[in-house]
Amino acid sequence: MRSHYCGQLNESLIDHEVTLCGWVHRRRDHGGVIFLDMRDRDGVAQVVVDPDTAEAFANADRARSEYVLRIVGRIRLRPEGTQNPNMPTGMIEVLAKQVEVLNTAATPPFQLDEHGKVGEEVRLKYRYIDLRRPEMIEKLRLRSRITHSVRAYLEDQGFLDIETPILTRATPEGARDYLVPSRTHDGHFFALPQSPQLFKQLLMVSGFDRYYQIAKCFRDEDLRADRQPEFTQIDIEASFIDEQEIMATTEQMVRQLFRDVLDVTLPEFPRMPYSEAMQRYGSDKPDLRIPLELVDVDDLMQSVDFKVFSGPAKADDGRVAALKVSGGAKLSRKEIDEYTRFVGIYGAKGLAWIKVNERAKGLEGLQSPIVKFMEGIVEQLLDRVGAEDGDIIFFGADKARIVNEAIGALRVKLGEDLELYTLRWAPLWVVDFPMFEADDNGRLSALHHPFTAPSCSPEELQSSPATALSRAYDMVLNGTELGGGSIRIHDQAMQRAVFEVLGIGKDEAEEKFGFLLDALQYGAPPHGGLAFGLDRLVMLMTGSRTIRDVIAFPKTQSAADLMTDAPGEVTQQQLRDLHIRLRQKAQPEPSGE
Amino acid sequence: MRSHYCGQLNESLIDHEVTLCGWVHRRRDHGGVIFLDMRDRDGVAQVVVDPDTAEAFANADRARSEYVLRIVGRIRLRPEGTQNPNMPTGMIEVLAKQVEVLNTAATPPFQLDEHGKVGEEVRLKYRYIDLRRPEMIEKLRLRSRITHSVRAYLEDQGFLDIETPILTRATPEGARDYLVPSRTHDGHFFALPQSPQLFKQLLMVSGFDRYYQIAKCFRDEDLRADRQPEFTQIDIEASFIDEQEIMATTEQMVRQLFRDVLDVTLPEFPRMPYSEAMQRYGSDKPDLRIPLELVDVDDLMQSVDFKVFSGPAKADDGRVAALKVSGGAKLSRKEIDEYTRFVGIYGAKGLAWIKVNERAKGLEGLQSPIVKFMEGIVEQLLDRVGAEDGDIIFFGADKARIVNEAIGALRVKLGEDLELYTLRWAPLWVVDFPMFEADDNGRLSALHHPFTAPSCSPEELQSSPATALSRAYDMVLNGTELGGGSIRIHDQAMQRAVFEVLGIGKDEAEEKFGFLLDALQYGAPPHGGLAFGLDRLVMLMTGSRTIRDVIAFPKTQSAADLMTDAPGEVTQQQLRDLHIRLRQKAQPEPSGE
Repeated sequence: MRSHYCGQLNESLIDHEVTLCGWVHRRRDHGGVIFLDMRDRDGVAQVVVDPDTAEAFANADRARSEYVLRIVGRIRLRPEGTQNPNMPTGMIEVLAKQVEVLNTAATPPFQLDEHGKVGEEVRLKYRYIDLRRPEMIEKLRLRSRITHSVRAYLEDQGFLDIETPILTRATPEGARDYLVPSRTHDGHFFALPQSPQLFKQLLMVSGFDRYYQIAKCFRDEDLRADRQPEFTQIDIEASFIDEQEIMATTEQMVRQLFRDVLDVTLPEFPRMPYSEAMQRYGSDKPDLRIPLELVDVDDLMQSVDFKVFSGPAKADDGRVAALKVSGGAKLSRKEIDEYTRFVGIYGAKGLAWIKVNERAKGLEGLQSPIVKFMEGIVEQLLDRVGAEDGDIIFFGADKARIVNEAIGALRVKLGEDLELYTLRWAPLWVVDFPMFEADDNGRLSALHHPFTAPSCSPEELQSSPATALSRAYDMVLNGTELGGGSIRIHDQAMQRAVFEVLGIGKDEAEEKFGFLLDALQYGAPPHGGLAFGLDRLVMLMTGSRTIRDVIAFPKTQSAADLMTDAPGEVTQQQLRDLHIRLRQKAQPEPSGE
Repeated sequence: MRSHYCGQLNESLIDHEVTLCGWVHRRRDHGGVIFLDMRDRDGVAQVVVDPDTAEAFANADRARSEYVLRIVGRIRLRPEGTQNPNMPTGMIEVLAKQVEVLNTAATPPFQLDEHGKVGEEVRLKYRYIDLRRPEMIEKLRLRSRITHSVRAYLEDQGFLDIETPILTRATPEGARDYLVPSRTHDGHFFALPQSPQLFKQLLMVSGFDRYYQIAKCFRDEDLRADRQPEFTQIDIEASFIDEQEIMATTEQMVRQLFRDVLDVTLPEFPRMPYSEAMQRYGSDKPDLRIPLELVDVDDLMQSVDFKVFSGPAKADDGRVAALKVSGGAKLSRKEIDEYTRFVGIYGAKGLAWIKVNERAKGLEGLQSPIVKFMEGIVEQLLDRVGAEDGDIIFFGADKARIVNEAIGALRVKLGEDLELYTLRWAPLWVVDFPMFEADDNGRLSALHHPFTAPSCSPEELQSSPATALSRAYDMVLNGTELGGGSIRIHDQAMQRAVFEVLGIGKDEAEEKFGFLLDALQYGAPPHGGLAFGLDRLVMLMTGSRTIRDVIAFPKTQSAADLMTDAPGEVTQQQLRDLHIRLRQKAQPEPSGE
């Protein structure tokens, strides 16, 4: 029905007859002539309809915004002075011979170029209209190119695309499962997978050697922090490999992806131990685009006569860290108050600071509510952070966890607010994670999951679990965790040691992970893998602000689809078939249930 | 960790040192030497371990079936007389220098080459063992190659891979939905999609122009006929196309797929109207590998003095069809009784037959319980079906629907039993389907779905709906429907006409399909598409007998996963979070609910 997409037209086609199909993006009458901007997925082209072509003109005349037209015409150069070099098709126009109305359109709920004026709710309800915006088409087109590039690379590397079930058993990942009542098994439920973790390990036990899948995953969590109840993972697992090999393979995948899709050559990814990332950036996913670092000053602060600092400096689990911002002395009191509130979100009880107005003047040249306590150490302090005139130094002093979260987040916020980025893309690997994290009562839990292999022997693990490191690795880009994974435990003695440290007894292990533990005893190869969050990767690569912009039909923060009006009500018969009934809202729970 | 896969070894590598990783497929001691057949996903290679290499020998000695080993050794030609030309690696063996036990293995629940001796239940429970069988690895590997080929073709043709939601609203496809209770919307439920039908039409309304997705779909049906509760579709939709273009594009896809993956060049697909398929084969998915055809003999049978034949021959909705089987006169009475029982499954009340022993002898040369009624027409009958000595002719006489189903099925069964196949692959398109089918009360329902476009005007549709044809098409291969689709309605007047014929009122339409109908009024392009059943396609291409063999982790006929033991029980807390409770089994329903 068409010869070209609108966006493909250019000067090389002058005097050619073309047939276009698309939507009326804009319509103008000008000097007795009708101008139609025709839009399709490739772009917009200007069509001119002259009254000479009477039937075409009549059809163009009744066409309104978003009508669907088929146009036959001849390409010509736009008259001098009306050319638009900023538009790919801006040098030419189509002189219409035929204009056919394929479909009419009611006035849309919002004009595409006025989408900013309506709330996101309206745009989600009429998602099919919102998706007409060229930038939305482009985002999803890029997403398609991204998955294609990833697949091409992985197939080329011998990875097999294998589907794992969506209707499965509750997985032990911790988050809340979506459940599906079974009709054929009264009182029983499927769970939607939080990830294909156990299945991909089983595929390694079966000998598939290299597996990948672009897999839907599901978590029934509160949707803070731009999450979706269903999201997509690039899921990868391989056998007879170590962490170096799988990291090299997947780093290469991402580098090729950026070359293919964005024409960007990423640098080789630096590798940073978890401890260093926390020390220097207060984060296990540091944004290395921002040239700010946390500097330890515990040793200096132990002696100061200021308990807010000396207390954490002396405490085992405390930390005092400085963050120097070059040129930050220009921040106003009001801005500093804003940042103080900001770090409060992360539990910091305050935000101390020193403005370095004129270092040469000594204490006189500094402006700060706390500098009076620091007389003896201030020169050492300024030297250590490399302070110069015009800088500001912020301080965090608290439990190390709070300092890292608060000053780590402040670092990123300052980077954004002051536009401190020195790089467009800053990838890295974070490695050498601890095996376990302790809660406030000292109870250990797995930092990743209990199948992550430690980098020490079972004996060492059991004798000093708190300092044991794992063979896990995270790929980080611009402060976002793109993917993470680990070498898994394939050895039963090691698995037993980990369960023991976690206080998981034999029965509990059997009940929770029975079929995987069964499988591991029948000849499991050494194996490991990784999972990438596709939505977040696409979000970064398209420069989008939310993952909702890179998902065709996303859900709201309350996990609803405003377009289809899902979730919806169902009939009593459907509930009866599934052996369930609704819990009465008003009626209090009978005790003992 | 390895230099080669086991299956890659051959004579070109003689004297090379190789490193293999894999499983002990078999172990034999012979003349003081240990022979290990080492298996990985690529094949099996023979490893020889000599007592000279003491450490290697000790490790090989303790290795048992399914142990995981790493072996370093040198390739050499097998000694004369021990070569196995039927095995890809059968000319060579690996003389081991090092044997490392990477993992031990408990005795597996069944030996791989004895999988036939255990029931499917055991194999499904230990699916990770069953998947180790080389033929299972091969099937899933082919599946991966199939999806890769399909994707490559579609990307090349400009189709964009776009994901649609899994948590969505109940769709109007008729089958039972899987439901997912919502935690955040009390008393409301998501449904898992039976297909992305509505979403892909919305993507066309948005202007994506060409969409595809390899999509999981869900139907909570009784799993007769080798179905699965979750299955996979190659889902395709395009705008500004007609049926010729979409059929050409997808036929080309399947032809390229067969070339890529099986090295088979399929013939061009013939196109057959639905009415012809029913007439000649009694089926809308005829198996054209079988050179048998139903022949209409109604005109001849109207006059015979045998009500079983003359009744249906005269009735408007009746049919009398003959099926001649060359050489079939050798069928025994017992075999014919079998076939009579077989057609009974499809509602046929009997199975009349004539054996043609010696045509030259006239009636004398025929053997049949019914030939006595046919004296006047028997020569015409034999001529019409082209009967020769040694043939048998079967007859169906009943309502046309029953004759088509019964004799159509008999045709396929005879083809299988008598090995009548003349082709390995017989693809075709079935076209010109009726728009509607009538139930016994004459009530019309959509043969496909109510968005299928008719091939006539709205006025013609309303004046004679029973004979209206649709713009639907099915791709059939070897008697299996591979895929089906249609040009959709994009015009509101046409959509109203179809709803009117179906007796769907405005309110019902709004409630069932509201958001699609909304979308269609905002400028829907002409569009259409198609969906292929991937599982069935892979089943045919791998020569498997059940789709369970081409799904990594399938469910049983009662929709259970025996390996993970899903569906499973959940806690009261989980149910409470979802605002549901279990229906008490013992307790009778209160009336009025």
